[in-house]
Amino acid sequence: MAERKYDKISAIARRRGFFWPSSELYGGLAGFYDYGPIGALLKQNIEKVWKKIFIAQEGMLLLDTPNVMADSVFQASGHLEHFADPLVTCTDCNTNFRADKLVEEKLKIKTEAMGVDELNGAIIANGVACPKCKGKLGEVYKFNLMFGTEVGPGEEKRIAYLRPETAQGAFVSFERLWEVARKKLPFGAALVGRSYRNEISPRQGMIRLREFSQAEAEVFFNPSDKKHPCFKEVEKEELNLLTIEEQKKGKSEKGEKFTAKEAVHKKIIKSELQAYYLTLAKQFFNRIGFPDSSMRCRQQLSEERAHYSIDTWDIEIHSEDFGWIEVAAIADRADYDLKRHSETAKKDLSVTIDGKKFLPHVMEASFGIDRPFYLLLEHSLKAEGKRTLFKFKKKVAPFEAAVFPLVDKDKLPEKALDIYNMLLENNVMAQYDNSGNIGKMYARADEIGIPICVTIDHQTLKDDTVTVRYRDTTKQKRVHVKKNYEILHEIWEKD
Amino acid sequence: MAERKYDKISAIARRRGFFWPSSELYGGLAGFYDYGPIGALLKQNIEKVWKKIFIAQEGMLLLDTPNVMADSVFQASGHLEHFADPLVTCTDCNTNFRADKLVEEKLKIKTEAMGVDELNGAIIANGVACPKCKGKLGEVYKFNLMFGTEVGPGEEKRIAYLRPETAQGAFVSFERLWEVARKKLPFGAALVGRSYRNEISPRQGMIRLREFSQAEAEVFFNPSDKKHPCFKEVEKEELNLLTIEEQKKGKSEKGEKFTAKEAVHKKIIKSELQAYYLTLAKQFFNRIGFPDSSMRCRQQLSEERAHYSIDTWDIEIHSEDFGWIEVAAIADRADYDLKRHSETAKKDLSVTIDGKKFLPHVMEASFGIDRPFYLLLEHSLKAEGKRTLFKFKKKVAPFEAAVFPLVDKDKLPEKALDIYNMLLENNVMAQYDNSGNIGKMYARADEIGIPICVTIDHQTLKDDTVTVRYRDTTKQKRVHVKKNYEILHEIWEKD
Repeated sequence: MAERKYDKISAIARRRGFFWPSSELYGGLAGFYDYGPIGALLKQNIEKVWKKIFIAQEGMLLLDTPNVMADSVFQASGHLEHFADPLVTCTDCNTNFRADKLVEEKLKIKTEAMGVDELNGAIIANGVACPKCKGKLGEVYKFNLMFGTEVGPGEEKRIAYLRPETAQGAFVSFERLWEVARKKLPFGAALVGRSYRNEISPRQGMIRLREFSQAEAEVFFNPSDKKHPCFKEVEKEELNLLTIEEQKKGKSEKGEKFTAKEAVHKKIIKSELQAYYLTLAKQFFNRIGFPDSSMRCRQQLSEERAHYSIDTWDIEIHSEDFGWIEVAAIADRADYDLKRHSETAKKDLSVTIDGKKFLPHVMEASFGIDRPFYLLLEHSLKAEGKRTLFKFKKKVAPFEAAVFPLVDKDKLPEKALDIYNMLLENNVMAQYDNSGNIGKMYARADEIGIPICVTIDHQTLKDDTVTVRYRDTTKQKRVHVKKNYEILHEIWEKD
Repeated sequence: MAERKYDKISAIARRRGFFWPSSELYGGLAGFYDYGPIGALLKQNIEKVWKKIFIAQEGMLLLDTPNVMADSVFQASGHLEHFADPLVTCTDCNTNFRADKLVEEKLKIKTEAMGVDELNGAIIANGVACPKCKGKLGEVYKFNLMFGTEVGPGEEKRIAYLRPETAQGAFVSFERLWEVARKKLPFGAALVGRSYRNEISPRQGMIRLREFSQAEAEVFFNPSDKKHPCFKEVEKEELNLLTIEEQKKGKSEKGEKFTAKEAVHKKIIKSELQAYYLTLAKQFFNRIGFPDSSMRCRQQLSEERAHYSIDTWDIEIHSEDFGWIEVAAIADRADYDLKRHSETAKKDLSVTIDGKKFLPHVMEASFGIDRPFYLLLEHSLKAEGKRTLFKFKKKVAPFEAAVFPLVDKDKLPEKALDIYNMLLENNVMAQYDNSGNIGKMYARADEIGIPICVTIDHQTLKDDTVTVRYRDTTKQKRVHVKKNYEILHEIWEKD
């Protein structure tokens, strides 16, 4: 049963061009996926909604920085030391396993707080063998998850790494950003791009990638002021909160419902600033198509927390196959980043405000893009009668509209192309299709989640009206193409 | 004199947030640059214009594929064998040089057609020494320019590379794309993303990067039909063409002006298909702000051509500091790619159309993004009286409008924020500023190329009119905010 929905989605995804394994022609490369033509548009739209919130609305500073960064950056950030998983290799068949996952699976115990020695001990004491060949397992050791490379030739060669998070691009440029932000706090920097994690054995398709896309917002703030000026605008939003205490008690999986204001008031979330970004994150997922009921906010246990965070709240979305999946994390990184970079680069990154000198703290709102992308497919896929459709919101649907001639003759294709071009000129991302009968064209449009189909028929030639057909209801309506921009209003109407 | 404009632009770029050296806090990493907050928006807009043409207008299939790809891909593509530069190292000071550039510089001879042996011979025969320490140079050898890395741990480890071009993502997925394109030719696949080239010694700032952004369109076509159905729409466009013959004669630097139609008719460009994409490329540069007079189309000499191309036309833009710079290349890759992948993967990638079986050919339109970005700064930077301004086109300007209160009191900031929010709701990318006097705010907006400033004053509170001030003319005009969307029309009006 386990992988059923994933398999179903994968099959549609390959056929219709959402995603497929990368370098497939050569047997694939585990943990790497291609976004096909439909998936790439959907993904791009998810990123657009994110940028609309964080760049346009919140006014954060967009950055676009290299994937390859110097080793000193990751010495400072702690990734060279901490960004590692415990690895164990079978001495017989050489298969590699994540030691913690293996011990957790075999001994049914929690391993998040266990170090290398404890994992080794547990394997020996319980005689855990290779799950593949029953062979003897070797010693557990820490395997660093960064992809390394070398920049430049010969003696001039420098060690560099593919970034494990986009965030470092903001921290190492703090001095420049501080100038651009005109020396005022708080300000945010936002990065959207690829990050890398050399997973020991990625086995969950799009859920655990070695190369993935992130959107990260790093907000630099004055630690003596953990309020947010716009908190009032979000304070009534409801959040499903699952605290550390409740998790330890094994309480309700979904957490309890609080408004953002209550959560801060009752000190469930420690600062207004963190509550603000958690709420903003939730709103982002709402906007791309996840209702509150599909999400929870879970406070990370201390043993799960990354080395740089003093408190982290995740947003998790439920998956039929994979359970609760982390899609965003709001982490209070305190002064960890600027302190470490100050020390390593031997350069004081303190700022002075109102005569007080201090290191700005960082609140991070970090989002994965690939997981919400996959989960959106899972949550939007519907089978209605004979129809298979993705009920994407208009904002993220790969195409805003499909345009068809009813038949491929009688000058209908020409007229349809005219209307298609008119839509393009109005910045509507439309798809033109004229292969097959109207039923097939509707079915194809449904299967990639196009919200509106526009059909041009013989009547159109006479009076410039077209049939608009809605994906979700299959209802149809006759609208005028030019008069009052009727057709554009149908496409632009909010869902 | 040489670097003057570059230095001037670099200084503004660092201060105002266009670009700066990456990992600067740690002394930088040669060949890697960050796009700062203003530059990242400008770059994003350049990419948007490209996507508007190639995805929306041309209907190409957008792909988004990993930066890391399996070694077999590059064995097939020929990059493991051919993607290399001749390297020579000083035996005394260990400095590395590109042997061909060094010989060219020292001996004033063309080296493009010279192999490793000939370069070695030239160095020995002419006693070329290390330009840095006068030491003895070692043997010239080929240095592969791909960044290598390792995927997975231990024995399961696989060698992979950072892609040297985005294009391979389309070729290795050809079978899937063929399905998505419903088994019809021609169709195009388009990729926008990072590529990598481990340059021996990058010394030209943004012009020669080790990690750079590309936008590539790969058009699969039937070699028995090298026409394009929309050629008529571009055939009257004029191109400055510099053929191989003219270059050999040392003729006019800019080439001769021909319409696209004449160029095909006179067989200057060998196919309508190649002429079509060359013209489309030219139009792209026009749209982002380069007039015809700043560009030339140069046919690559056979010794310059990449190993996969049978004929390549570059678009080059003139730079004050760097001379003619390649910004796009339209290459006829023939059946090179699908043939090599068919052979290496042992899988026939032929298609059958009308009973004829063949390997589709590829016409590639490949664009750098970083170079046009830099050249746009160079071409748009103007000094007018005391003003420094970037005359960006509205389509690419980092912000579409700036919004200011005339003074920071009397409820003007509140009103200005209302108007700012109204613009945001209408998808206008606006910047809000209220620090300093109006003159300073205009100057700051000019210096990052914002085309329109909207000033809110006491009059606005009474009648909802604002002052619109145009960057290029400094002229001002009073317009209504809400009535007939007057302000939006000002912002959206074409330039």
